[in-house]
Amino acid sequence: MATAAPDETAAMRRALELAARGLGHTSPNPVVGCVVLDSEGRTAGEGWHQRAGGPHAEVHALRAAGERARGGTAVVTLEPCNHTGRTGPCAQALIDAGIARVVYAVADPDPTATGGAVTLAEAGVDVEGGLLADQAAAGNEAWLTAVLRHRPFVLWKYAATLDGRIAAADGSSRWISSPQSRADVHRLRAAADAVIVGSGTARADDPQLGARIAGLSDDEISQPLRVVVDSGARTVKAGARVLDGTAPTLVAVAEDADAAHLDGLAPLLRLPRAAGGRGLDIPALLRALYEREVRSVLLEGGPTLAGAFFAAHAVDKVVGYLAPVLLGAGPAALGDAGITTISQALRLDVTDTERLGPDLRITATPIRPALPEEN
Amino acid sequence: MATAAPDETAAMRRALELAARGLGHTSPNPVVGCVVLDSEGRTAGEGWHQRAGGPHAEVHALRAAGERARGGTAVVTLEPCNHTGRTGPCAQALIDAGIARVVYAVADPDPTATGGAVTLAEAGVDVEGGLLADQAAAGNEAWLTAVLRHRPFVLWKYAATLDGRIAAADGSSRWISSPQSRADVHRLRAAADAVIVGSGTARADDPQLGARIAGLSDDEISQPLRVVVDSGARTVKAGARVLDGTAPTLVAVAEDADAAHLDGLAPLLRLPRAAGGRGLDIPALLRALYEREVRSVLLEGGPTLAGAFFAAHAVDKVVGYLAPVLLGAGPAALGDAGITTISQALRLDVTDTERLGPDLRITATPIRPALPEEN
Ligand SMILES: NC(=O)c1ccc[n+]([C@@H]2O[C@H](COP(=O)([O-])OP(=O)(O)OC[C@H]3O[C@@H](n4cnc5c(N)ncnc54)[C@H](OP(=O)(O)O)[C@@H]3O)[C@@H](O)[C@H]2O)c1
Ligand SMILES: NC(=O)c1ccc[n+]([C@@H]2O[C@H](COP(=O)([O-])OP(=O)(O)OC[C@H]3O[C@@H](n4cnc5c(N)ncnc54)[C@H](OP(=O)(O)O)[C@@H]3O)[C@@H](O)[C@H]2O)c1
Repeated sequence: MATAAPDETAAMRRALELAARGLGHTSPNPVVGCVVLDSEGRTAGEGWHQRAGGPHAEVHALRAAGERARGGTAVVTLEPCNHTGRTGPCAQALIDAGIARVVYAVADPDPTATGGAVTLAEAGVDVEGGLLADQAAAGNEAWLTAVLRHRPFVLWKYAATLDGRIAAADGSSRWISSPQSRADVHRLRAAADAVIVGSGTARADDPQLGARIAGLSDDEISQPLRVVVDSGARTVKAGARVLDGTAPTLVAVAEDADAAHLDGLAPLLRLPRAAGGRGLDIPALLRALYEREVRSVLLEGGPTLAGAFFAAHAVDKVVGYLAPVLLGAGPAALGDAGITTISQALRLDVTDTERLGPDLRITATPIRPALPEEN
Repeated sequence: MATAAPDETAAMRRALELAARGLGHTSPNPVVGCVVLDSEGRTAGEGWHQRAGGPHAEVHALRAAGERARGGTAVVTLEPCNHTGRTGPCAQALIDAGIARVVYAVADPDPTATGGAVTLAEAGVDVEGGLLADQAAAGNEAWLTAVLRHRPFVLWKYAATLDGRIAAADGSSRWISSPQSRADVHRLRAAADAVIVGSGTARADDPQLGARIAGLSDDEISQPLRVVVDSGARTVKAGARVLDGTAPTLVAVAEDADAAHLDGLAPLLRLPRAAGGRGLDIPALLRALYEREVRSVLLEGGPTLAGAFFAAHAVDKVVGYLAPVLLGAGPAALGDAGITTISQALRLDVTDTERLGPDLRITATPIRPALPEEN
């Protein structure tokens, strides 16, 4: 950005840090950070969007700045919104506070909120977009993807051996991955709006699916919605750990499934069965979650359900925890995804690798577009 | 090393670099580097063991130093040898040259060569061992392991997808790994004394198994011995690329196999069949290769043969090329290694990870001792 001043770039970096504090708490809204500089370029106020329904980042920052906002510059990670939702439009709030200039990173793709930049410019505010746009887009990766695709952003996590196994031949698997990797999964859960597992995993592991993070109290962690995909309603039963009441749970069942035994135990998500194959229709599942304001999903598996998500082009990011272990037998990390020959292989870009204790964490993004847009 | 002078440590680092130039050329001998310092501590001569049968590192360095060796210090990566093999004992050569002090890194574990330090000390030379011993041991990893275990050092290399597959469901696999990874495999081949594949790989891929390295001429690359493990002598036939004459080839067959069709085509290695399972006896195969002066083996697979090597505790190091690809179906990188439950899992230490183009190379060492010593 040729025209952004150095203090504005510094303020944007700070705004990105502030925005990240909201991760896991703001859905269906994006995370946003804002720094208000006074007319001399000194920081006058800071704010971030802390939770859905609460004030937007700009409002927090303007309040903190008070009269010092007049004639100053607002540096925001996302184009200020233009609509009156649960809170008033931020564009108007900035105008009312006498802000002279607005620098934002990413344009708002949400058709109901966009237009803030135009409103500001029409009111005589000097507006500039695109500063540190890549970093800001990465910080709002899940929300931006969800808004564009009209379904939640899906992150598939798996833990496997170097030879791609998730368990030994007899099914035993505790513990393939290290305590550090398991702790990292809890951070992924806390950052996600929902966690999904298939009935196979529910049956094998009876997982609780909650986020527990050392050093953080229950209030500080936002628990994800727990979703079990159990077409026939034969797996989730009274006493299952996902029904422990510590966070909401949804059981996704087929429209025609007999689920009377779940009455009063867990809300159901009635969905059509998959057209050709086994289980439920994955796009319908994601659409239903999107309608419930879920913007990011952590898909925890198992391999069968993950294969179905890949076949539906519904995985946006992959995090693999590779344990330095070899087994030579046992179930594979990923089941049938409809790929039969090498030219159909799903190729990814590795964006990060990190050692977590003895394990290696690999973060990767599918190279092919995950899903044709569904507008 | 409290008593090594700084110039000796610098000389040892240089000697380690020199030693590495011999990798792939010195078997059944170790790689060795030597720097001779004059009585003022200035470099007077350098040398390394260039090929089996040629002069040892010390002899090269003494020749280069000439009269300046008198009263000087020899810095050597391995304890100078004490025996008269194809060349005279180095301990005596150092004494004859008037060397006043010898600093070496690793003691010579070879029972026929050891004793050099004692001979030197008895002749009044000041002798000190252990300087940069860990680095020197790593540089001679294959040879030291081979001498201790009386079998070649075995490095298993595999290339797989993130979900541990080596091919798609229909068997197609070109190219899962990147050109950078494939070039790296050629470097491993050039550094190994022998390359081994099973009959399954020979049948599926008809591999040539030669080392080709961009920028190096044929003379500069030492081609490994090519070994195909073909118990029934049913796979390797006239016209197979491993029989192209560019390097020696051995076909390992069972003692009772009918291999008349290979007469004059390739030398045979007659071996007992595995006691319980399929194929040949792996320890017998490795013993036979050791007797033929093979000190390091690159095991290129496939998964079935690799499983048998692991079951025999005969893998010392693993190099995995992980391609950022997912398949969801297809053969796994490692076949049955006799592991049925998680407590028997083979655990490794990851010693290095590196990006090779889009791929990730993981180097790891099995944590359990690879084989009880066979002395
Ligand atoms: N290492 C890891 O990262 C990890 C993570 C999770 C699980 N696991 C392991 O994975 C194992 C279970 O895996 P799994 O593959 O058997 O079970 P899964 O993937 O958890 O569940 C598969 C089941 O999901 C249901 N389903 C609903 N819609 C589907 C669709 N569209 N396509 C496919 N399935 C659909 C089907 O059962 P219904 O017809 O009953 O609905 C299907 O049988 C367990 O051993 C667990 O420990 C490992
Ligand atoms: N991605 C990679 O890194 C990589 C590397 C190599 C191969 N591959 C692929 O692997 C596939 C072939 O693998 P594979 O598992 O079928 O074949 P393999 O491991 O190459 O060969 C297995 C055969 O080796 C012979 N053998 C001899 N002694 C043995 C013993 N003690 N234990 C087990 N087998 C012994 C047996 O056949 P006999 O009874 O006939 O002797 C056995 O069937 C090919 O598709 C190839 O492309 C991939």
